[in-house]
Amino acid sequence: MSTVNAAKPPRRYISSFQPSEYITGVFSISNGQLGRTKNDKPYLKCMIRDKTGELPARMWTIDPEYFRTLPSEGFVYIEAETQPFQGELQLILKAVEAVQVDDQMLQELLPVTTKNIDAMFADVVALLGTLKHPAMQALAQTYLDDENLMTQFRRAPAAKSIHHAYIGGLLEHTLSLMKLADVVCPLYPKMNRDLVLIGLFLHDLGKTRELMYDRTFAYTDRGELIGHIVDGAVMLHDKVQTLMRVGGVRLPKNVYTVLQHIIISHHGVPEFGAAKLPSTPEAILVAVLDNLDAKATMSLAAARPDREESNDFGSNFTERQFALDTKLFKPDPLAE
Amino acid sequence: MSTVNAAKPPRRYISSFQPSEYITGVFSISNGQLGRTKNDKPYLKCMIRDKTGELPARMWTIDPEYFRTLPSEGFVYIEAETQPFQGELQLILKAVEAVQVDDQMLQELLPVTTKNIDAMFADVVALLGTLKHPAMQALAQTYLDDENLMTQFRRAPAAKSIHHAYIGGLLEHTLSLMKLADVVCPLYPKMNRDLVLIGLFLHDLGKTRELMYDRTFAYTDRGELIGHIVDGAVMLHDKVQTLMRVGGVRLPKNVYTVLQHIIISHHGVPEFGAAKLPSTPEAILVAVLDNLDAKATMSLAAARPDREESNDFGSNFTERQFALDTKLFKPDPLAE
Amino acid sequence: MSTVNAAKPPRRYISSFQPSEYITGVFSISNGQLGRTKNDKPYLKCMIRDKTGELPARMWTIDPEYFRTLPSEGFVYIEAETQPFQGELQLILKAVEAVQVDDQMLQELLPVTTKNIDAMFADVVALLGTLKHPAMQALAQTYLDDENLMTQFRRAPAAKSIHHAYIGGLLEHTLSLMKLADVVCPLYPKMNRDLVLIGLFLHDLGKTRELMYDRTFAYTDRGELIGHIVDGAVMLHDKVQTLMRVGGVRLPKNVYTVLQHIIISHHGVPEFGAAKLPSTPEAILVAVLDNLDAKATMSLAAARPDREESNDFGSNFTERQFALDTKLFKPDPLAE
Amino acid sequence: MSTVNAAKPPRRYISSFQPSEYITGVFSISNGQLGRTKNDKPYLKCMIRDKTGELPARMWTIDPEYFRTLPSEGFVYIEAETQPFQGELQLILKAVEAVQVDDQMLQELLPVTTKNIDAMFADVVALLGTLKHPAMQALAQTYLDDENLMTQFRRAPAAKSIHHAYIGGLLEHTLSLMKLADVVCPLYPKMNRDLVLIGLFLHDLGKTRELMYDRTFAYTDRGELIGHIVDGAVMLHDKVQTLMRVGGVRLPKNVYTVLQHIIISHHGVPEFGAAKLPSTPEAILVAVLDNLDAKATMSLAAARPDREESNDFGSNFTERQFALDTKLFKPDPLAE
Amino acid sequence: MSTVNAAKPPRRYISSFQPSEYITGVFSISNGQLGRTKNDKPYLKCMIRDKTGELPARMWTIDPEYFRTLPSEGFVYIEAETQPFQGELQLILKAVEAVQVDDQMLQELLPVTTKNIDAMFADVVALLGTLKHPAMQALAQTYLDDENLMTQFRRAPAAKSIHHAYIGGLLEHTLSLMKLADVVCPLYPKMNRDLVLIGLFLHDLGKTRELMYDRTFAYTDRGELIGHIVDGAVMLHDKVQTLMRVGGVRLPKNVYTVLQHIIISHHGVPEFGAAKLPSTPEAILVAVLDNLDAKATMSLAAARPDREESNDFGSNFTERQFALDTKLFKPDPLAE
Amino acid sequence: MSTVNAAKPPRRYISSFQPSEYITGVFSISNGQLGRTKNDKPYLKCMIRDKTGELPARMWTIDPEYFRTLPSEGFVYIEAETQPFQGELQLILKAVEAVQVDDQMLQELLPVTTKNIDAMFADVVALLGTLKHPAMQALAQTYLDDENLMTQFRRAPAAKSIHHAYIGGLLEHTLSLMKLADVVCPLYPKMNRDLVLIGLFLHDLGKTRELMYDRTFAYTDRGELIGHIVDGAVMLHDKVQTLMRVGGVRLPKNVYTVLQHIIISHHGVPEFGAAKLPSTPEAILVAVLDNLDAKATMSLAAARPDREESNDFGSNFTERQFALDTKLFKPDPLAE
Repeated sequence: MSTVNAAKPPRRYISSFQPSEYITGVFSISNGQLGRTKNDKPYLKCMIRDKTGELPARMWTIDPEYFRTLPSEGFVYIEAETQPFQGELQLILKAVEAVQVDDQMLQELLPVTTKNIDAMFADVVALLGTLKHPAMQALAQTYLDDENLMTQFRRAPAAKSIHHAYIGGLLEHTLSLMKLADVVCPLYPKMNRDLVLIGLFLHDLGKTRELMYDRTFAYTDRGELIGHIVDGAVMLHDKVQTLMRVGGVRLPKNVYTVLQHIIISHHGVPEFGAAKLPSTPEAILVAVLDNLDAKATMSLAAARPDREESNDFGSNFTERQFALDTKLFKPDPLAE
Repeated sequence: MSTVNAAKPPRRYISSFQPSEYITGVFSISNGQLGRTKNDKPYLKCMIRDKTGELPARMWTIDPEYFRTLPSEGFVYIEAETQPFQGELQLILKAVEAVQVDDQMLQELLPVTTKNIDAMFADVVALLGTLKHPAMQALAQTYLDDENLMTQFRRAPAAKSIHHAYIGGLLEHTLSLMKLADVVCPLYPKMNRDLVLIGLFLHDLGKTRELMYDRTFAYTDRGELIGHIVDGAVMLHDKVQTLMRVGGVRLPKNVYTVLQHIIISHHGVPEFGAAKLPSTPEAILVAVLDNLDAKATMSLAAARPDREESNDFGSNFTERQFALDTKLFKPDPLAE
Repeated sequence: MSTVNAAKPPRRYISSFQPSEYITGVFSISNGQLGRTKNDKPYLKCMIRDKTGELPARMWTIDPEYFRTLPSEGFVYIEAETQPFQGELQLILKAVEAVQVDDQMLQELLPVTTKNIDAMFADVVALLGTLKHPAMQALAQTYLDDENLMTQFRRAPAAKSIHHAYIGGLLEHTLSLMKLADVVCPLYPKMNRDLVLIGLFLHDLGKTRELMYDRTFAYTDRGELIGHIVDGAVMLHDKVQTLMRVGGVRLPKNVYTVLQHIIISHHGVPEFGAAKLPSTPEAILVAVLDNLDAKATMSLAAARPDREESNDFGSNFTERQFALDTKLFKPDPLAE
Repeated sequence: MSTVNAAKPPRRYISSFQPSEYITGVFSISNGQLGRTKNDKPYLKCMIRDKTGELPARMWTIDPEYFRTLPSEGFVYIEAETQPFQGELQLILKAVEAVQVDDQMLQELLPVTTKNIDAMFADVVALLGTLKHPAMQALAQTYLDDENLMTQFRRAPAAKSIHHAYIGGLLEHTLSLMKLADVVCPLYPKMNRDLVLIGLFLHDLGKTRELMYDRTFAYTDRGELIGHIVDGAVMLHDKVQTLMRVGGVRLPKNVYTVLQHIIISHHGVPEFGAAKLPSTPEAILVAVLDNLDAKATMSLAAARPDREESNDFGSNFTERQFALDTKLFKPDPLAE
Repeated sequence: MSTVNAAKPPRRYISSFQPSEYITGVFSISNGQLGRTKNDKPYLKCMIRDKTGELPARMWTIDPEYFRTLPSEGFVYIEAETQPFQGELQLILKAVEAVQVDDQMLQELLPVTTKNIDAMFADVVALLGTLKHPAMQALAQTYLDDENLMTQFRRAPAAKSIHHAYIGGLLEHTLSLMKLADVVCPLYPKMNRDLVLIGLFLHDLGKTRELMYDRTFAYTDRGELIGHIVDGAVMLHDKVQTLMRVGGVRLPKNVYTVLQHIIISHHGVPEFGAAKLPSTPEAILVAVLDNLDAKATMSLAAARPDREESNDFGSNFTERQFALDTKLFKPDPLAE
Repeated sequence: MSTVNAAKPPRRYISSFQPSEYITGVFSISNGQLGRTKNDKPYLKCMIRDKTGELPARMWTIDPEYFRTLPSEGFVYIEAETQPFQGELQLILKAVEAVQVDDQMLQELLPVTTKNIDAMFADVVALLGTLKHPAMQALAQTYLDDENLMTQFRRAPAAKSIHHAYIGGLLEHTLSLMKLADVVCPLYPKMNRDLVLIGLFLHDLGKTRELMYDRTFAYTDRGELIGHIVDGAVMLHDKVQTLMRVGGVRLPKNVYTVLQHIIISHHGVPEFGAAKLPSTPEAILVAVLDNLDAKATMSLAAARPDREESNDFGSNFTERQFALDTKLFKPDPLAE
């Protein structure tokens, strides 16, 4: 298995593929299966992906022994032709070989935040440092001390697609929410800022178990069957036990339940996955802030993208945004 | 018709009435009708209200001539007995007389904000002063120059009931939202702050036509049939024409439409009265902030009321909150 | 820019295009944009349309200077090949040139009513002539005197697609409803016929601002963000002011509100765009008649089309009709 | 058992009962049951009804033998006191005796149409006489020849409550719809008038089995478990067999199915009881006309009742109308 | 017309077709229509089907006279090429000829149960033999005596697709439910087993009229417009009359209504086609058992199919199952 | 504090209270609060309950010191008058005193299963003994070894109201489901019986934390905020760790996730509290069986209660059953 880096001719991205092109390069592979043609000959079916998109691929002749050298989820060098099939492009593989990738290449294969991960994490830690109640400080530290979890927290995307669907997305979304809480809480003096801040820190941590993001973005089996809501609740159960056993800290009455309630209710309504309706002021605020950040981020990304598509003389509206249930009017009428 | 002030024995409030009490005092009257008993004798039906609640009332003998001296919506001095009827209390009037009320008394009859109206209005004006675009400054000034409208804006409640249902409530809710926008907009640099701020200033102004709040809180006929959403849109149409005709200012292209869109979409979804789904980043933010302030205000008011009901050894939960679709857990577990 | 008329070899319609044909002729163009290929070469993307349908088109080499001679929405002569792409046909343009079209050609490019527009308009005017109340007569006249509006009223379609989606469709639909009211109102003597008739005349006039129909059928930006419901309400506000200012006629109390209510409630329920539920007998009748005409027209057009497709030995059912939520049984069992 | 007629002192109606009155007179009784008090003494529970409403009643001491002389559904002379209980009035019976009632009295006990039943029935027959297709004429005659069914058709209400809930209501509603079809069908020439007219004649005939209306208005057990939709379909099955067997007439292909489809789909959507969505133009028209007549009738009855309640100086709105999901604005602004 | 049997080279199944193959063989044809090309030349449009799937087909040159020799629904020998068109495969016919098929061939063209039909029918009869009440025995016998109906009962599928969509499926599903009832009823002693058992026997018999299954699987016109729910109710009406007329057996009071209620309520809720909500314990049990068998059968068929697809190294989840609203986790973790 | 037993004059049950009775006896008290009258005098508010129902109670004069001797949730001897208030009965307490109750009295105060708890528990253990896989045997034993949990499992009700709302109800419902699975699983050979059986054993165990049932039936605070679904998932997490740590048994891959999925999905749909849709055959079967047992039990309890109310000559229908969304037809037509 060879090692590949990005010091190569300019990379072709999947989003720019046209019919009948010849493609070579390193991509992420997933869902690798060995099919059988009608003549009972084995062939390879899989998905090929880079940070710009994914395509189905077929290799019509492949030796089953060789197939076993390929990763089910991992990285491959391919040579292939693009071919329209059933209304979409697919790749007909001429050659495929398992490869290792370095970090530089990985950034071509999986989308990654444009922000600095270390700086964002430091901001989260700093905001947790403003917690007033010693028990909340101690609980936050129990999470921060879990190095494995924090490594995942810094890497995980916040979603498989739609918004913050890139390496570092979970951290970026969490920090964004904690900053929001930092400016919004003072406007509602009776709102307990500690509960809101730590609630936001915890609310999506179960996504580190729900999503796979080292080789491709996908839901794990556990993510499909259990999900980050319940796993975040179980994780809190463990951390509270650790805090008591290791740190000797017993949370004030109801704190465990109220924080767990924030986690399991933060999607707002059952149809969107909440196991309970938010039923404390802080749980309600967490759910609304989560919604605010998601909608503001999605709408600005769609209506006012960074890269100006400068030759667009066409419609003033974006495509319909599935998660917003509408298409967006793009012009900022005061900016023109 | 006599004039009444509050310099009287300690006032009895409707919320504290028990069965079989004798009540005297000044109240707001509404829905005054002359009914006919089975023996074809005229009787008076009406609602009696103060700042703490309302009750149905009956006066079994009344002269139709005298009836015509009473206001359909206004103020009366009454003498009455409380009586349970069909599962609720009602008032059996022994005497009723139209009265005028001074401002001090009015505050006993209609609920009023605990904040300072002049100070809040000054804050709104100051925030409008931070608008950057000259056309937005000019448009805001056109509204501020409408003295009649501003008088109503300072007095109107934001709702007939539920949240901000008191004199000054519309102003308080609007200011609360503009302050929120002031801290939230900087976190989303591509969000056009001018559109959000002026959009929030305008979004509920139609409520000055939707609600009656000088003698009682009720929907006007126009409020029932047209509503503040469409009336706010018509009001903007007029103001933009005034701005052009009087001030000679022509809004940049699309600004009129985009602001009107914010007004008609701010309830978020059609089921809650939005004529269009919010379809610009600023319209989406206005709708979410409106929702945030409403839910934070309602949940804190229910779970952590100002007046401590100190002898409550009972449930940790409030009654079910209709607008939140749930009951709320009251304890702040870190505050105990 | 050349002028083109229809005196040419028999026209090929888009609905009859097959793969791999060579097409020449005049069509409507819309959504014209200048894209960039992966090699950064400019290319033209647009939609090509005639009265029978529309297709996406591409011209792979185009000079940006020449591109600017083309209309974003307008008319062009093209030479092109049809090509299957991603499950649909698209046009590969070999030549494209802006042209003017005469009225005869326009009728090939935009679908048009089969009825006589002048005769239909005369019928509307005649039905308005039967209004009994002088204020209603005067209000109707204020609308009829707005020549620009009446020109649009005679041309606009009633929808972008589905039913009455052709030039003259709004007029045809409006007349159809007024005739319905003319026969139905006498069966309900307490129904105020004046309010129903003028309400129907006004209910969809906002569509003249919601839809673009001079070069293609599409929603205007204002149509997307505001819609014909609110714009019809604003239009009535203006006309009532004109009537008072110019004609010196003051409407009886509540008439303005009740007519505006008919306009904003005529879609029946919020999910279909009504800003209020119909809340007067006349508003209810207008909403139900609108629904009746739409459903009767759509179902007959689908199940019993004018052009008999004579060689159909197949299913007795139409395709599923989206707006009726079902497919229709075509045979009239008494007609066979 | 005595016979009672209405030549008595002026009748007291249930709708006018006040607490603590002494009532005597003849009423309809239903739901008669023998309860047991905690001391195991038998008591009578039942409902007492006249044409204006119904009340629960109790007789605290009753001999079981005497109880058996009372009808479960029928008529009784009572002496009773009105008493508030659990938020409503109830009757405490002092005496109760089974009676027979004459037709005049029956009209005091069950609400009845204000129209002439014979004249309405003649109108229905006349409209059926305009059917063009001989098979439809023959089918209509088969129904008209069923004397028992026609007797029920002339008496049955169209509903237990809400609209046309009175003796003769089914006939009145059916005739109203057939008249509507008579004026509407000519506006849609492709609509088969025969199918619409006979479809309307048949659509609610199953209500003769669904409702009990000789002693009180109630659903029959069969009405609850099967309903008029399925029973109307079964009835058509029988009539078509009779027509073939007795009259020797075989319906054209599909006519039986298409008419049965009209019956089972006329409620429009499954949530309102339709077994299928209307899927022919005629089935769609029948469902929409049924909706039109119901809504027009209900809205006019609520907003503009016959009896002017002349002393009402109160709200311009009716109570919330359950079946219209809103309250109605009462004034006709052009009539004042 | 020639007769074809299956003693031929190994059959190619539609599910295995690839683009650009040449196909010969016998298939089921449906929806045969004669279209017209733009040059007004006739062509054949139809669907071609075998037990594994179906594809659209076109024959670009065909003599209308020859067309009339083809069945609209039936069987044909074809020679054809597979061609991708608009994102799917279609067949371009080179030759087509009507054929008769023997039973062996029929099993290649229509999917068929893997169970023994005679044995299953015997089991149904045996279970009906355990009915205790003589009237229920007599009613069951009346159905069993209807040879034509029983022939259809043994052949009909239980659905057009999804579950039990094969010859013998209705019988298999019915037997499966009766066996379930046989073990479940004893756990609820108050449940009347006779009503449940015969209710299950009857509940889907209307499907023999709803579905066409002799040449292809499709809904009949009557199935679309009336459906098996209402037709099952009408069928019971007829059988009960036969039982009384021929057998002299009068059902106990309410039995007819209660059984008919089971039939029309067995889909549970109106959205899924129930004409009434199940309102007896037995009707509720029938609806729940029907749901249990459908879901258990579908989930096992999807997650644990008979044919092991042995080279699948891919996802642990099935495709999304439309009728279960989710995708299924395939592994049985205790079986590995 | 005195101790009270049931050897007393015949007990009066709350369900039989009439207005204006004098009541003495021992009851359960809950929600005890100290209110303040308008004159600022303290009074006691609470709920009084026995196994047949509950009523609000007030004691208008009470010493705050004495109040503190009363339990918030517990048992009291009371002397009281019944009084109608706001449409319901309430109790006016004359005397109230905290008491201890023995087990015999407890059975008068809380409803209890009519089955034998020891025998039912033995049946559950026996069914768990039929598990085939050693890991499942070991896991079941880990639960059975938790004495505290098993004590709760034997006592807890399955609901606060509706079905199995009595001491022992959780055990009875669980056993009922395991017996169902025992007879149903053999009919679906591919269904893994072990997973279904142990899944049913575990599915509602979280109710031991969700419900309070030692002094009254109510949701615990944790039950309101977290619920038995998430708590059942956390409990499994703990037990699996115990099994590994103590028993050294590691579950086969995916078993933990699949069992936890059964627990969190067993309510079927999110609207009813499922955190995930059931997505394995076994999870689907568990959800359907749970539904079957609930509906069969509720419908038989309502339509065919044990105690024959023999003098009911009235309606054949029960009251509307909230959880079944309908009223039930009571007669078993074959039993009469």
